[in-house]
Amino acid sequence: MPQVFPSLSALRTACRDLPAGDAAAAAAVAARQAELTKPPGSLGRLEDLIAWLARWQGHLPRLDRVDILVFAGNHGVTQQGVSAYPAAVTAQMVQNFAAGGAAINQLARSAGATLRVIPLALDQPTADFTQGPAMDEAAFLAAVAAGVAAVDPAADLVCLGEMGIGNTTAAAALAAALFGGDGARWAGRGTGVDDAGLANKRAAIDAGLARHAARGADPLALAAALGGRELAAILGAALAARRARVPVVLDGFVATAAVAPLAQLFPGALDHALAAHVSAEAAHRALLAALDLAPLLDLGLRLGEASGAALAVPLLRAALACHTGMATFAEAGVADKEH
Amino acid sequence: MPQVFPSLSALRTACRDLPAGDAAAAAAVAARQAELTKPPGSLGRLEDLIAWLARWQGHLPRLDRVDILVFAGNHGVTQQGVSAYPAAVTAQMVQNFAAGGAAINQLARSAGATLRVIPLALDQPTADFTQGPAMDEAAFLAAVAAGVAAVDPAADLVCLGEMGIGNTTAAAALAAALFGGDGARWAGRGTGVDDAGLANKRAAIDAGLARHAARGADPLALAAALGGRELAAILGAALAARRARVPVVLDGFVATAAVAPLAQLFPGALDHALAAHVSAEAAHRALLAALDLAPLLDLGLRLGEASGAALAVPLLRAALACHTGMATFAEAGVADKEH
Repeated sequence: MPQVFPSLSALRTACRDLPAGDAAAAAAVAARQAELTKPPGSLGRLEDLIAWLARWQGHLPRLDRVDILVFAGNHGVTQQGVSAYPAAVTAQMVQNFAAGGAAINQLARSAGATLRVIPLALDQPTADFTQGPAMDEAAFLAAVAAGVAAVDPAADLVCLGEMGIGNTTAAAALAAALFGGDGARWAGRGTGVDDAGLANKRAAIDAGLARHAARGADPLALAAALGGRELAAILGAALAARRARVPVVLDGFVATAAVAPLAQLFPGALDHALAAHVSAEAAHRALLAALDLAPLLDLGLRLGEASGAALAVPLLRAALACHTGMATFAEAGVADKEH
Repeated sequence: MPQVFPSLSALRTACRDLPAGDAAAAAAVAARQAELTKPPGSLGRLEDLIAWLARWQGHLPRLDRVDILVFAGNHGVTQQGVSAYPAAVTAQMVQNFAAGGAAINQLARSAGATLRVIPLALDQPTADFTQGPAMDEAAFLAAVAAGVAAVDPAADLVCLGEMGIGNTTAAAALAAALFGGDGARWAGRGTGVDDAGLANKRAAIDAGLARHAARGADPLALAAALGGRELAAILGAALAARRARVPVVLDGFVATAAVAPLAQLFPGALDHALAAHVSAEAAHRALLAALDLAPLLDLGLRLGEASGAALAVPLLRAALACHTGMATFAEAGVADKEH
């Protein structure tokens, strides 16, 4: 794995030097929207989405090539009894992805997207963060690099998701460290833990926060101490996409927590990212609000696997179809509002 | 046009004798959902949608044939200055639909659906309801019959939408008559009226309510007095679909108001109907709540044309793809929660 960033410090520097969007491309799209045969603004969020795509692609939008990236990792914190499923399920689900049997396989095909699953050292779970840092700097940077490498600059859109038994605990701990609050505030039921599991989850988060509080000031150090390989890879992928002018669709709670350090390092770092949905995971709505991200869908999903991100793709395609295919008032001979 | 229902009374009788859904088909789908490789319930609303499709189709769901029906009508109440656009735009947009230049043409193609536009006597606007009933009984029943005739029992799903300059005023007046409240509560900006237009709209609704208050007890008589041909056709289509076991997707405020009389005539009359979205039209959320309909999307749309209904179709397709394509825990060799 190439070490794209040789140190946390080099990564931090890269996170603080992000390109702006293309205002001219967004304006060109908005000008056409105003001429199409519909009341101004009547396609609501679909119009915003097209302007967003144009701004971050830097040209009239296209969605010829949509990549869905699912990063998988294992978590030492599972030994605290935080998940309803055994840790072995992570690798089993990666096999299921390869065999085409998971939800995301069906959703990717339905969305006309290419699915790539990137397992990250599944036989080496991160350390239990209640006992020490989940990853050392080298492991964290390697996972970030895997995320960077997974983004093809030729893609028109990249959807980011994950699989990892125990990773809502890691995500909640990271969110708590970044935004304040404790396990009671940030822990949810994940894949469906019972009351005892939820109590374990809250306690593990509180223990992790207590152990790693000294790292409080640095979002990347917190991501290494409390996160996971798949979260680090998502951070790397979101960063690489921004630098390559590829807009990003974020899946659920874990993916959102994964990129939160970017927002703390650079205002507007997530402007190229669309929150596909707000999930059923209790703290996702609060996390999105903290990041000023407005979710597109609210379907009570709590699966991960980029499933929510994949569901946003047909809506983006529909928005693009309207933008490119509709007639203008002049072309159609329809009276405009002012006439 | 065949008079499917020879009288309001015959129509009312039909509305009060609706078939129930197929509980066994819904249960079969739910049983399979529980075996698929995902935590139980983790696909949220997608799982509910599949059970809903099964219940109303009466078999394992399919979406091979999706019909989008757009009914168009003209409204005498436009002479009260209630719309931002001239009434001529209704016919111009019907031409635009035929030429393939409108939003719904692109959205139908994007959804893999067949679009049919049914103009209803566009050269004979309904009467201005501030002066008298919008339609007499014969005109109302003819429009209902047009809606009935438009539903092909062989369709797997029917999306219902409309086009008609002035029809948010008719829809608001009908909603007010059915659920109480005045023009101030139910009128919104529709395609984008200014403050003066909004005031005209409220006043027209209040005048209509005052004039037709005596009809208060009968939802169908109110639909004739305050509604419009395209609303009556949507009511007829929703009724025909229920009788033919075809689930229905409702578009926005106008389509929702159009079917509201059905709910007042028979509890559960809209159980086969999915509210595709909550629109930007101010009173749509309240109307959906009054009908106990939970919208699937919230995208700030305010176009009509079945645009929101068409956007729900890819989500239904994605839900179906998961249901039919996913592996079970046993097939994939993934450990289930209990093991």
